[in-house]
Amino acid sequence: MSQTPLSPEALEAALRQIGAERYHNLHPFHRALHGGQLNKAQVQAWALNRYYYQARIPAKDAVLLARLPTTELRREWRRRIEDHDGSEPGTGGIARWLRLTDGLGLDRDYVESLEGLLPTTRFAVDAYVHFVGEKSILEAIASSLTELFSPTIISERVSGMLRNYDFITEETLAYFTPRLTQAPRDSDFALSYVKEHARTVEQQEAVIDALKFKCSVLWSMLDALDYSYVAPGRIPPGAFQPS
Amino acid sequence: MSQTPLSPEALEAALRQIGAERYHNLHPFHRALHGGQLNKAQVQAWALNRYYYQARIPAKDAVLLARLPTTELRREWRRRIEDHDGSEPGTGGIARWLRLTDGLGLDRDYVESLEGLLPTTRFAVDAYVHFVGEKSILEAIASSLTELFSPTIISERVSGMLRNYDFITEETLAYFTPRLTQAPRDSDFALSYVKEHARTVEQQEAVIDALKFKCSVLWSMLDALDYSYVAPGRIPPGAFQPS
Repeated sequence: MSQTPLSPEALEAALRQIGAERYHNLHPFHRALHGGQLNKAQVQAWALNRYYYQARIPAKDAVLLARLPTTELRREWRRRIEDHDGSEPGTGGIARWLRLTDGLGLDRDYVESLEGLLPTTRFAVDAYVHFVGEKSILEAIASSLTELFSPTIISERVSGMLRNYDFITEETLAYFTPRLTQAPRDSDFALSYVKEHARTVEQQEAVIDALKFKCSVLWSMLDALDYSYVAPGRIPPGAFQPS
Repeated sequence: MSQTPLSPEALEAALRQIGAERYHNLHPFHRALHGGQLNKAQVQAWALNRYYYQARIPAKDAVLLARLPTTELRREWRRRIEDHDGSEPGTGGIARWLRLTDGLGLDRDYVESLEGLLPTTRFAVDAYVHFVGEKSILEAIASSLTELFSPTIISERVSGMLRNYDFITEETLAYFTPRLTQAPRDSDFALSYVKEHARTVEQQEAVIDALKFKCSVLWSMLDALDYSYVAPGRIPPGAFQPS
């Protein structure tokens, strides 16, 4: 990167370029998932492991919430926790994700126990939680910017999975519908914040690295699923064994 | 596990059984590494990624050292840091590991920059550093017990690599020789500590889980190497590209 800071618009373009090159919609496992090349056990493995990501998002957001200095920022960030945890039993993003694992025939207690997780899933997700506690607030907010790219992957995923798998229904994919409005609202805020506060070359480099880091978290999770569950399938000791 | 605590000897047997089932000498990547089935670029990728593990071990040990309550325990644990960091420039385990990456033709600045690391390597190693800071001291000490199993893998590795690769010499494998005496000394201490202090069923379960966790750290690193660098080889964005 040059020694002259980017304009806010050029910074946004650089961030969008990272998505175009590193977002996990480009991963072979996602292409197979959306394209109908997986069997039910492989879709189960994806939903089971991705559950841990969903389940830790409120922890990630709470770690950051605890560090935010103003009521305005905390109100904005608190909404993310409300989206994931809901306000009544059975509501919120985590509960909706469990409808997906239910619909795939996974035992709910087993899913929630985390016993069958791939260790790499746990390490990648935990790295994200630690990142928002250890890096600057600017970097922590920037790491959420993968949501800039999620509406595209969600529409590809929902239409592809409904078309290609007879064990997938609109009801089991209920997680994704509210995300189509929540993610743009959240990423609009985060992008504005980053464009306003990343002014120096160093801050802009840190923001770009934070988004690359977050892309690598999502990518690592798919590497592990592909390695473990797609042929030849080398499931690590102790992880979910399809029945 | 039953509701009656194991005898110290039965606990040791249970811990050794975990090694027999989950230690990374059983991983297909290690079998290929030791058996001569890898090319030089693949051995480079292994040494480059494993460097990060070596480089973080003193941080892992310092995090635990900071939590140990007595001079006796701290003296014992401090020796591990001395082994890895040495007392003069060019000495210690990390410096010896760099002789391996040098011997494999990797640029030392590039290795030390960590730029080419697989993200999964970073997440797995960092998970180990966090583990010893967040879990009980008993679990943190137990997580070091993979060293019970390392003399076997080291002798397999040294003899196999010397026999099978013309780009490997005794000098480049200098890292491993002192480990053959350091690891048993360290694991004798840790095993005695664990056998003495893990008395309840809950403590024994925690100790067993800690060793499983550590095995999964090492296993995850090899999953990522195998997925990324062994055919078809799906190197994630930004990671080391063999020239």
